[in-house]
Amino acid sequence: MARIVKKFGGTSVGDVERIQNVARVIKSEHDAGNEVVVVVSARSGVTNDLIARAKAINPNPTDREMDMLLVSGEQETIALTAMALQALGVDAVSMTGAMAGIRTEPFHTRARIVSMDCKEIVHNLEANRVVIVAGFQGAGNQGQITTLGRGGSDLSAIALAKGVDADLCQIYTDVDGVYTADPRIVPKARKLTEISYEEMLELASLGTKVMQARSVEFSNKYNVPFEVRSSFNNNPGTIVKEEVSSMEDVVVRGVALDKNQAKVMIANIPDKPGSAARIFEGLSEANVVVDMIIQNIGRNGVANLTFTVPRDDTDRASQAVERILSELGGGEVTFVSDIAKLSVVGIGMRSHSGVASQLFSALGEAEANIQLISTSEIKISVVIDESESDHATRVVHTVFGLDKE
Amino acid sequence: MARIVKKFGGTSVGDVERIQNVARVIKSEHDAGNEVVVVVSARSGVTNDLIARAKAINPNPTDREMDMLLVSGEQETIALTAMALQALGVDAVSMTGAMAGIRTEPFHTRARIVSMDCKEIVHNLEANRVVIVAGFQGAGNQGQITTLGRGGSDLSAIALAKGVDADLCQIYTDVDGVYTADPRIVPKARKLTEISYEEMLELASLGTKVMQARSVEFSNKYNVPFEVRSSFNNNPGTIVKEEVSSMEDVVVRGVALDKNQAKVMIANIPDKPGSAARIFEGLSEANVVVDMIIQNIGRNGVANLTFTVPRDDTDRASQAVERILSELGGGEVTFVSDIAKLSVVGIGMRSHSGVASQLFSALGEAEANIQLISTSEIKISVVIDESESDHATRVVHTVFGLDKE
Repeated sequence: MARIVKKFGGTSVGDVERIQNVARVIKSEHDAGNEVVVVVSARSGVTNDLIARAKAINPNPTDREMDMLLVSGEQETIALTAMALQALGVDAVSMTGAMAGIRTEPFHTRARIVSMDCKEIVHNLEANRVVIVAGFQGAGNQGQITTLGRGGSDLSAIALAKGVDADLCQIYTDVDGVYTADPRIVPKARKLTEISYEEMLELASLGTKVMQARSVEFSNKYNVPFEVRSSFNNNPGTIVKEEVSSMEDVVVRGVALDKNQAKVMIANIPDKPGSAARIFEGLSEANVVVDMIIQNIGRNGVANLTFTVPRDDTDRASQAVERILSELGGGEVTFVSDIAKLSVVGIGMRSHSGVASQLFSALGEAEANIQLISTSEIKISVVIDESESDHATRVVHTVFGLDKE
Repeated sequence: MARIVKKFGGTSVGDVERIQNVARVIKSEHDAGNEVVVVVSARSGVTNDLIARAKAINPNPTDREMDMLLVSGEQETIALTAMALQALGVDAVSMTGAMAGIRTEPFHTRARIVSMDCKEIVHNLEANRVVIVAGFQGAGNQGQITTLGRGGSDLSAIALAKGVDADLCQIYTDVDGVYTADPRIVPKARKLTEISYEEMLELASLGTKVMQARSVEFSNKYNVPFEVRSSFNNNPGTIVKEEVSSMEDVVVRGVALDKNQAKVMIANIPDKPGSAARIFEGLSEANVVVDMIIQNIGRNGVANLTFTVPRDDTDRASQAVERILSELGGGEVTFVSDIAKLSVVGIGMRSHSGVASQLFSALGEAEANIQLISTSEIKISVVIDESESDHATRVVHTVFGLDKE
């Protein structure tokens, strides 16, 4: 007998038929003699509908009321999922985040989990009931209803797996695992059997849409292994867990390509102390996340600055930069949108040298010009032309031996 | 300064514009220096949608899960209403039934309120906030989410008025008060300024759709006066309160007509002990509410039985009666659908005689044949032909002096 936490996202519980499908998956786990805790999100579309209705009434609602509103979405799904299980003859109870003992900071819309009190869940599991918990929500110390922010349901699942001391935590998604590359770009991409937290974290932060980085960080911090798998088939997924030494045998675990990037080049910035800091402050105030920064000082004492920003934020970034340049009294800015960020990731890089030169020669072979480079302990990223990026990804995938088992 | 509870039903908060309209009504009360507690229902249609989704998944969900599901409807409305007030510059907080301190029996789908703990609401009122409470819901002693059954939001409002010691409780509806008769039938019907709990109770139980009888019973039990008024205009409504002696000056307060009735006549029932009891037991098991019962024994020792049932329940009643008659071994049943129940109601009847004879002579004048009669301390009801009932109601309205102020 194992104790298992299963998390299903909004697409998996999007309508009556899908909820019934999820119930069948849960039932077969329960029939096999296992204890099952289920975390569900709101039906896909519901949260956006609620937000649209809120914005029509008040463009700036308080965070407290936004939380009160949004949790109603999950509350519907937990009850419907419990009913679907009951229809299959499985005893099930639903719980809000508060009832499930998810205690958070008293801050709304992005509360962090501070403790888990899972007695009530365990009591129900021991009574042979499946427990369905509303994802994304918790309660502050005064009973305030809080939410955990984007990707919060994954976080709920991992925290519950820790809280009930689960043997396994399964995150059901619309992909059936983590791949060596995006299979739509690289037909030879393979599903990974396992991957370390850190590699998953780098892939998540590179825009591989399987999971939010903060859920992976949380699982890393509390060492909660989890499996990413599909809610539409029964194939084994990818286990994300603490690294073991054998994982280092593979130098590069995967290749990620992020096309939602734009390059910002600022030339002739007056070389006063704090100029660069002022620019990045302004971008931060405008809520723009900056990546891959390169600064160099030109011959005539003026600085050049290059960095990337999410392509969707180009307008906001542009307004912020123009405003600060006029404050600083100089500098010309150029935006380049048709770029892509290609990254190779692998904990094996720590103990293997030559990865960078191998990557650069692969890119040369693919005739892709490298515009920017950044590296971390387990990752090398380069910015190249978007038009060359799909082909380059396939070449890099082959060069690092990822095409074969 | 007054402390006021205002309750708005599902139609009043049916869409974004209506919620904004409700917010303006609340704001003007708050601007006048009053403390305001607001009770809202789910948007009209939402509860039925949720029930339909539940039934598609499980025809017999547990009551617990049904409650978990349905409360999500009000939770959406309270947050949106609070946001609408915030958009108008009024500080507002929303509360679930549990947060508002509505403590109920631990029974689901029709829990009775056992106590009110309104400290948190009062604390917020004193901080100059409008408090928006989810109607229809409460919490059991273990924190279980419960609902109060049909008409539960009215009950929430009246219980909160008691709990916060309100000066006034206003029930906003789609009618603008209680009338001497249905204005669609009797054009000369007048809105009543005030009416006693008992009269309101009789009118509610006669199918006048302003409020559920149990909310009126609750307000009677705890002596919480309330006003029924329209959410679509600013006219004063009808005050429902404890009777005062001057109310007895009016013999008949109103005339009610209930066309949702059918007459059941059973002839030649074998005259064994318990035959009638067996028939009514069977109807009760089939969830049919029986009204206006008349039994008489025929010459040859067989009993005849006549009673009325809600017209919508005719099929269920018919199946139940046929089954029991075949058990009893005799009796023929006839259903008559085209009847109506006309009632005159007034606490003045207690101290005035001659109301019955005046009613019967009015019905004679209207050429309406009386088929059945039943009386209570403050009400006389008769069953007449449906085709004659509108005209008869107008004649009775005039005869009892209700046409004029």
